[in-house]
Amino acid sequence: MEKNVGIIAASGYAGGELVRILSQHEKVNLNYITSRKLIGKYFHQIYPNFRNVLDIKFEEFSVKTIKERCDLVFLGVPHGVSQDFVPELLDVGVKVIDLSADFRLKDKEQYKKYYKKEHACPYLLQEAVYGLPELHRKEIKKANLIAVAGCHAASAIYALYPLVREHLIKMDPIIIDSKTGSSGSGATFNEATHHPIRANSIRPYAMTGHRHTAEIEQELMAVKKESSASNQIVKVGFSAHGVNLVRGILSTSHVFFDEKNPIEEKQIFKVYRTAFKNEPFLRLITQKTGIFRLPDPKTIIGTNYADVGFQLDDHMNRIVVLCALDNLVKGAAGNAIQCMNLACGFPEDTGLTFTGLFPI
Amino acid sequence: MEKNVGIIAASGYAGGELVRILSQHEKVNLNYITSRKLIGKYFHQIYPNFRNVLDIKFEEFSVKTIKERCDLVFLGVPHGVSQDFVPELLDVGVKVIDLSADFRLKDKEQYKKYYKKEHACPYLLQEAVYGLPELHRKEIKKANLIAVAGCHAASAIYALYPLVREHLIKMDPIIIDSKTGSSGSGATFNEATHHPIRANSIRPYAMTGHRHTAEIEQELMAVKKESSASNQIVKVGFSAHGVNLVRGILSTSHVFFDEKNPIEEKQIFKVYRTAFKNEPFLRLITQKTGIFRLPDPKTIIGTNYADVGFQLDDHMNRIVVLCALDNLVKGAAGNAIQCMNLACGFPEDTGLTFTGLFPI
Amino acid sequence: MEKNVGIIAASGYAGGELVRILSQHEKVNLNYITSRKLIGKYFHQIYPNFRNVLDIKFEEFSVKTIKERCDLVFLGVPHGVSQDFVPELLDVGVKVIDLSADFRLKDKEQYKKYYKKEHACPYLLQEAVYGLPELHRKEIKKANLIAVAGCHAASAIYALYPLVREHLIKMDPIIIDSKTGSSGSGATFNEATHHPIRANSIRPYAMTGHRHTAEIEQELMAVKKESSASNQIVKVGFSAHGVNLVRGILSTSHVFFDEKNPIEEKQIFKVYRTAFKNEPFLRLITQKTGIFRLPDPKTIIGTNYADVGFQLDDHMNRIVVLCALDNLVKGAAGNAIQCMNLACGFPEDTGLTFTGLFPI
Amino acid sequence: MEKNVGIIAASGYAGGELVRILSQHEKVNLNYITSRKLIGKYFHQIYPNFRNVLDIKFEEFSVKTIKERCDLVFLGVPHGVSQDFVPELLDVGVKVIDLSADFRLKDKEQYKKYYKKEHACPYLLQEAVYGLPELHRKEIKKANLIAVAGCHAASAIYALYPLVREHLIKMDPIIIDSKTGSSGSGATFNEATHHPIRANSIRPYAMTGHRHTAEIEQELMAVKKESSASNQIVKVGFSAHGVNLVRGILSTSHVFFDEKNPIEEKQIFKVYRTAFKNEPFLRLITQKTGIFRLPDPKTIIGTNYADVGFQLDDHMNRIVVLCALDNLVKGAAGNAIQCMNLACGFPEDTGLTFTGLFPI
Repeated sequence: MEKNVGIIAASGYAGGELVRILSQHEKVNLNYITSRKLIGKYFHQIYPNFRNVLDIKFEEFSVKTIKERCDLVFLGVPHGVSQDFVPELLDVGVKVIDLSADFRLKDKEQYKKYYKKEHACPYLLQEAVYGLPELHRKEIKKANLIAVAGCHAASAIYALYPLVREHLIKMDPIIIDSKTGSSGSGATFNEATHHPIRANSIRPYAMTGHRHTAEIEQELMAVKKESSASNQIVKVGFSAHGVNLVRGILSTSHVFFDEKNPIEEKQIFKVYRTAFKNEPFLRLITQKTGIFRLPDPKTIIGTNYADVGFQLDDHMNRIVVLCALDNLVKGAAGNAIQCMNLACGFPEDTGLTFTGLFPI
Repeated sequence: MEKNVGIIAASGYAGGELVRILSQHEKVNLNYITSRKLIGKYFHQIYPNFRNVLDIKFEEFSVKTIKERCDLVFLGVPHGVSQDFVPELLDVGVKVIDLSADFRLKDKEQYKKYYKKEHACPYLLQEAVYGLPELHRKEIKKANLIAVAGCHAASAIYALYPLVREHLIKMDPIIIDSKTGSSGSGATFNEATHHPIRANSIRPYAMTGHRHTAEIEQELMAVKKESSASNQIVKVGFSAHGVNLVRGILSTSHVFFDEKNPIEEKQIFKVYRTAFKNEPFLRLITQKTGIFRLPDPKTIIGTNYADVGFQLDDHMNRIVVLCALDNLVKGAAGNAIQCMNLACGFPEDTGLTFTGLFPI
Repeated sequence: MEKNVGIIAASGYAGGELVRILSQHEKVNLNYITSRKLIGKYFHQIYPNFRNVLDIKFEEFSVKTIKERCDLVFLGVPHGVSQDFVPELLDVGVKVIDLSADFRLKDKEQYKKYYKKEHACPYLLQEAVYGLPELHRKEIKKANLIAVAGCHAASAIYALYPLVREHLIKMDPIIIDSKTGSSGSGATFNEATHHPIRANSIRPYAMTGHRHTAEIEQELMAVKKESSASNQIVKVGFSAHGVNLVRGILSTSHVFFDEKNPIEEKQIFKVYRTAFKNEPFLRLITQKTGIFRLPDPKTIIGTNYADVGFQLDDHMNRIVVLCALDNLVKGAAGNAIQCMNLACGFPEDTGLTFTGLFPI
Repeated sequence: MEKNVGIIAASGYAGGELVRILSQHEKVNLNYITSRKLIGKYFHQIYPNFRNVLDIKFEEFSVKTIKERCDLVFLGVPHGVSQDFVPELLDVGVKVIDLSADFRLKDKEQYKKYYKKEHACPYLLQEAVYGLPELHRKEIKKANLIAVAGCHAASAIYALYPLVREHLIKMDPIIIDSKTGSSGSGATFNEATHHPIRANSIRPYAMTGHRHTAEIEQELMAVKKESSASNQIVKVGFSAHGVNLVRGILSTSHVFFDEKNPIEEKQIFKVYRTAFKNEPFLRLITQKTGIFRLPDPKTIIGTNYADVGFQLDDHMNRIVVLCALDNLVKGAAGNAIQCMNLACGFPEDTGLTFTGLFPI
């Protein structure tokens, strides 16, 4: 049965992608989008690709309206905002899929450490499900509150969870060196995003302390715990760079195996193939020939795919794992809709089968 | 009823887009793709976005196979090649949609002038229909041989045909200054397309003598003739530049009205609105506010839209008309499939409703 | 003898280029730079390429300080501002080189028409010399107030003045279709210059009414008048597009000759060769072979060159003339310094011999 | 006294930069450039920025000519080629500065391992000096054969040598994640460098086994040994990605300190400041405010600077060190000329003081 859905704060880039996909999703009726600053304006005034295509207007945010019109809402609000009204939304009985970071972390202390404030409703942190379909499919199906994974975090977790689950790598150190396009910093402009300043740069913008670090650690720790009954604390060294693109993330994870337990390439292949076998949107890309032997964001822009590939470095007992995804799709709106599909009982890939454009 | 279709020379960029769209087109079964150099290889070995998605392989070209398997074939061969086997294909009863320039020009002398060779089957030039759905919808529906418009030509014709039809502009001079991404020069690499050489350039690559000049003149002359019974020879000054993009064309047409018959903006609006009223893929983009007031290829990449906009320049009795389109979609594969939809009796927009990604 | 120079409003992009060139100019001592917002900050805090290289600080604007310290000042203020204090500067005896548009137009009515305000000191308009060294070398040598040409205007005038002077073309219509990088819109950021919005676009931002239109007309008219004693009013159709680059302009001029007086290519070659023979920074780039047969901004970034090339279009009695230059150098700071060199009696190319980087 | 210099194989991108800098170098006379394929052509036919500027022609390679005309030659030949004629060049008494990798490695077994062939003159490997002025200034001054450092290697070594020398970090693991523009793959084009394929990519092209790994290890080991009398084998995990640029490298090194010996930020500052104090081209870029707080290739294109910056990650005892340089200048031609200046007794920065363009 068709669901009525809304998007709170639909003007940002993740919101724009939600509208794009939901407006053509055969199982839902998108009937409510909000934006504080754009009330009364058409969506296509901000997203020019929708001119002549979609006539929906931005409205004011109202829990009452949500109650009346929506079975499920997506939240595109900034970090720190959704916690103020999610309890109310849950009370009126709508499912909530939050694209902000507010409900991603299970531990309120970690939240405080990384987001520099007390969480407004820490009692919901355990109830919320981390919105990464591949790791939490079962819980997502039953969830009322889903906190969609951060873009860098999704990329790093997809790269590493199969290796962690199968105990192929040492948990220390784990280095994740991530590269992202400019849309990752959102629709709000500033001096640093001015085209003459941002273009042609390789900008090391968050070498340490990036907030996605906490998500990655939480999820890898959970995978480790589940598969080994170990309570090992996992720490990752995560660093993020801006590159000369609008869309796309490539994360390069440098991880190590114990030299006493050397690994063969075919073992790694097997681990990933097994992990991704039933995953509709994770692809193992590791070829010996061709131009695109390893993942490259160029090939997945606009799609819900996360491409993962690896190379074994016998020289220093290292595995290099790459993951490419579109930060606005698999890193945000696409994963959110995949979660919705699960939570609503729709086929998991509904609305998400766009295959990308090549070359672009 | 579903049609079986094939693509001859599917490895080029227009061929790649044909595969992308046709493989997800609900009314056709794509069951044959050829490439001389790639026989036995999977399509996704060349188009990495199709890994895990599509398992079709390149086969050898064979009229016999076409006869057995296809109701309709698209030709992605280089200019000068399709004329050698189109007669045979028509003989075996398949419809042919040719993306090369071989059958675009009605006049074999013009063909010879611009393509520097005698046409191999000039008797087919009148039978062939110029593949621009908006101008030749009726003929395309009945055609067996369709010659899809060139990318720059489509852009220029969309910009100008409403003004020509309504006699709003002088036919001399007509200046078309076109800008295109690097995919326009095709999948074959050379020194000039080497990334360090081609990137960051504004390359004036065909200031005069561009082959699309002949198509533009032919079609504008036909529009003029139809609406005025005049036999006026039309000449256009067409110039093409490569800009720092992979996809997209923006053409800027500079045309003039008679100062004795001054024009008002609202007249021009009316002419375009009337012309595009029932066109599923032509949009008039002329706004007084916003960032994207006029067409910009950025907003239509991957789509089958051609966006047209104008500004009136009272200063010198000029109208500047812009047309943005994706050279590989509305400038090639998309128009080809729109033609197929017409020729096969499918809804005209089948398979062509992708709305584009923003920002990109 | 060395001159002391200052830059008023040195924080903008043209100001930054002035500092770059002047700080290494062997004949001047740059001892004063101002910026309202950056008083007390080092120049290298804004222009990171100057870290460890230059220790000059932004100071407050003061006519008194200028009088004490400077023989000559460059003005990098916005349009409409310099007219408020230029008279005072001239009174204290410094030479003024204004990069804004305030003193470019000779006719106060034209100023009012294009800049939408009354000029504050119209009596200076005749005294001011238009800062295009190639056309006004003699006056610049004696000038106290020089108004450096606009970037698009310089490009268009360089392309066309030899043809106008030699009466090779009709004065109506003259179409100039210009393409520019994002630095042309200056250091002030806004929604439209946000990298995700501005990148990958071909943005038709000023199809009609661009302010440089008036400069181009004024200068071409003057050239025409000088060589023919004609008082013909000249109107040009100028249109400007933003392309996917930071620096560089390519203008494409479409001009016509009388079909009764057909032109040969060698005549045009001769006209340009003669015109540019003694010009240190104008190059005729029109080759039959090679990748860069015609001007391309890629090859001149950072330099003071303006490259001009042409193609003759017999098809419609058209000459297409291209001019590539760096909008911040030959289109602003470089021309300003070339003017200074003339006005101060230095060798004309002092400080301006950087040859550019290739590939870039 | 002025030296006569030549460039063997000057057509490649490093060769082009050599010509650019040497042709304006006040202490040398560039009087011989060779290229097998371009004999008789002007340099400016390949490097269009030199049109009207430089009239030197490519000649045939001849040891006799070198002997007659040159005091010193630069070799821009591919890897594996210079070893075939360097002995002969040394015999005729010219100094040789080789930009290929042939003489970088001291250990012929390492050479064989990484370059897959026996070295033709292993007896010269010890005599050759590794061309990194900051580490080998003394030897370079006396050297007859200098092997200029690889571009990625230079970037990584500049980032790490101060930390290694002062024993601030553990030698295992050392991870270097490098990002480079497309000019790094040279002037030879292929399918993978075709603009539509290479543009907009983040291409992980050498995750393991990159040849520069050996250089980095050799040099860091030497630094370690010199400062600690240790013979510790050093292994680094080096990975290289292509990003959407023509020029520039940013390397991100992830290194670790012993948690028993925690480090403070000010110690690291001190180590770098001390190391770079007298270095004309190494800058420490680590700021708390501003847009360019850490190195970014955008700010150094065309210059001989290597900018190094760091962030301390207490979270996991990590130091992230960044180094930005222009792969064709400080990563090739610039370092080569800095070596020449040392070897010829010229001021070390002669010809190398270009400060870069901003914004670009």
